[in-house]
Amino acid sequence: MSARQRHLKLDLAAGRVELSHGAGGRAMAQLIAEVFHQALDNEWLRRGNDQSAFDVAAGRMVMTTDGYVISPLFFPGGDIGSLAVHGTINDVAMAGARPLYLSASFIIEEGFRLADLKKIADSMGRAAREAGVPVITGDTKVVERGKADGVFISTAGVGVLPHGLDLSADKARPGDKVLLSGSLGDHGVAVMSRRQNLAFETTIQSDSAALHGLVGEMVAVAGAGLRVMRDPTRGGLAATLNELAQQSCVGFRIDEDGLPIKPQVAAACELLGIDPLYVANEGKLIAIVAPEHTDAALAAMRAHPLGREAAIIGEVVEDEHRFVQMTTAFGGGRIVDWLAGDQLPRIC
Amino acid sequence: MSARQRHLKLDLAAGRVELSHGAGGRAMAQLIAEVFHQALDNEWLRRGNDQSAFDVAAGRMVMTTDGYVISPLFFPGGDIGSLAVHGTINDVAMAGARPLYLSASFIIEEGFRLADLKKIADSMGRAAREAGVPVITGDTKVVERGKADGVFISTAGVGVLPHGLDLSADKARPGDKVLLSGSLGDHGVAVMSRRQNLAFETTIQSDSAALHGLVGEMVAVAGAGLRVMRDPTRGGLAATLNELAQQSCVGFRIDEDGLPIKPQVAAACELLGIDPLYVANEGKLIAIVAPEHTDAALAAMRAHPLGREAAIIGEVVEDEHRFVQMTTAFGGGRIVDWLAGDQLPRIC
Repeated sequence: MSARQRHLKLDLAAGRVELSHGAGGRAMAQLIAEVFHQALDNEWLRRGNDQSAFDVAAGRMVMTTDGYVISPLFFPGGDIGSLAVHGTINDVAMAGARPLYLSASFIIEEGFRLADLKKIADSMGRAAREAGVPVITGDTKVVERGKADGVFISTAGVGVLPHGLDLSADKARPGDKVLLSGSLGDHGVAVMSRRQNLAFETTIQSDSAALHGLVGEMVAVAGAGLRVMRDPTRGGLAATLNELAQQSCVGFRIDEDGLPIKPQVAAACELLGIDPLYVANEGKLIAIVAPEHTDAALAAMRAHPLGREAAIIGEVVEDEHRFVQMTTAFGGGRIVDWLAGDQLPRIC
Repeated sequence: MSARQRHLKLDLAAGRVELSHGAGGRAMAQLIAEVFHQALDNEWLRRGNDQSAFDVAAGRMVMTTDGYVISPLFFPGGDIGSLAVHGTINDVAMAGARPLYLSASFIIEEGFRLADLKKIADSMGRAAREAGVPVITGDTKVVERGKADGVFISTAGVGVLPHGLDLSADKARPGDKVLLSGSLGDHGVAVMSRRQNLAFETTIQSDSAALHGLVGEMVAVAGAGLRVMRDPTRGGLAATLNELAQQSCVGFRIDEDGLPIKPQVAAACELLGIDPLYVANEGKLIAIVAPEHTDAALAAMRAHPLGREAAIIGEVVEDEHRFVQMTTAFGGGRIVDWLAGDQLPRIC
């Protein structure tokens, strides 16, 4: 290879990803340097090892992972890059933990535009810097045209648990309150509005956000009263509560009147024939809180920018059937069942 | 949903993955329970949270990730499941660290056979148990038919670094020795032998294996002398040495006579018109070792089942051009350059 070739930069305007970008040779080294390291730059990536090291204090840590296959890749309020940072930070934070570091694995389809890859990597870097949770190690694979769909990202995250905290899905108890940090369905509706076969006009943006700051405030004032936290992503509030009901062997009673749903989201859901309770969120959390800690937790949530609209939306009840029941706005009742089928594929 | 439907088991013989298996509802919970938790069973997965917690002592940890897109999914000596465990354990181990835990993110194509998914999950569980490194958290996504290629897996891993160890790609120094743990090219040749367009007969099996036990022995006797370790996967020995040459600003001189290559691998490579130096390995490591620690490191390697054929294959030299030079069997010399292009796509 001549000196000239060696210093030729990637064509980030018009270039495309080729199989050689995943083959372990010089093209891959260049892609990683000019796209990923450029965007995610930090002291760990700069060392160029296949793994990265960090110091920890003695204690309890958590680890999580999520794959992101969202379609389309770019949507109002975010893209697959920011989502892959926020979503995994949130899964760490839902344990009550403080997220420390992320890893990122990219699976890219041959022919994908380098300009789009750069946009995604840049967005990922921005989200990681804003959250203060760096991506310290990664991997890139390329598959043939038609063997993937643009780009898939899997991120993993690690974090540290404050002493004594042990939130778990099996810890909801009758009498506990159900707190929700804000409005439902924004992410799902924003993404659906850009689906090729559906495209409709909406001003709704995805709520995609990193919730660890909000969680930190809640842990500080109500840590001992936190039973479970979950971010209601795929399957929405309905799937999350049904899962928790199974895992804790309880029921839930939810008040429809108390559910924060934006009028534009309600309208879009009506148009699409879907129920906002089943629509994915990416910047909201549900907390099951012991009754005596509810006021403190709610006040802490409302004092945080990402929890301003927080509300108590219901409570945990004894129920051998493990039903999620909702008191409707008209005073009636209905069962909020598990999602059947695939209402909203590839929403995250 | 009736009680009967609720208790219907997945059809693991003839069933296929559907989009609903990734939608966050009951079908997904069932797939996770009957395929993944069944295969990977451990105390963490049983708790059913979106993240898992573990205790750590104060010290230094490492984190890594790799995506696996190998084609075909099943090959002589392994499959994508065992590979995704071994590969990520090895990336942790190459820092000299002791792997603790793995995460796994599955991206599955709609229509993929449940029987194959179960085979992969079972193989993953077996590999994790044999290595003593459990998969403690995971995620499952399903994409439409034609939007992936069967199944992709991204695993991340964390481990603990023994005190004082700081291996890094920039630490090779002139005079250091290059140690290789065993024969080259087995994995790549085994996989290529099953490619639809190439299929040929060979008795070669992939060398896919977890190397952390071998690394532990090396660290114990020669920890202070270990500069860098790498597993020569994509791009093989050639890519690994060229990368290290760049990162450490040195050259390498390798002796062709000293390279362990099985006759069947050499024959297959000749048939395919490829050079075994560029072929992927999944159970081998290269160690750059300070001269005074070489004998101890080599003896430790040879005493371990995965390092019986370990050899000193060359040394680090001063070279402003950062070339990897090879003395050939006939006494001549040649430059072993970076891999150009995509000789062996989707080999891991």
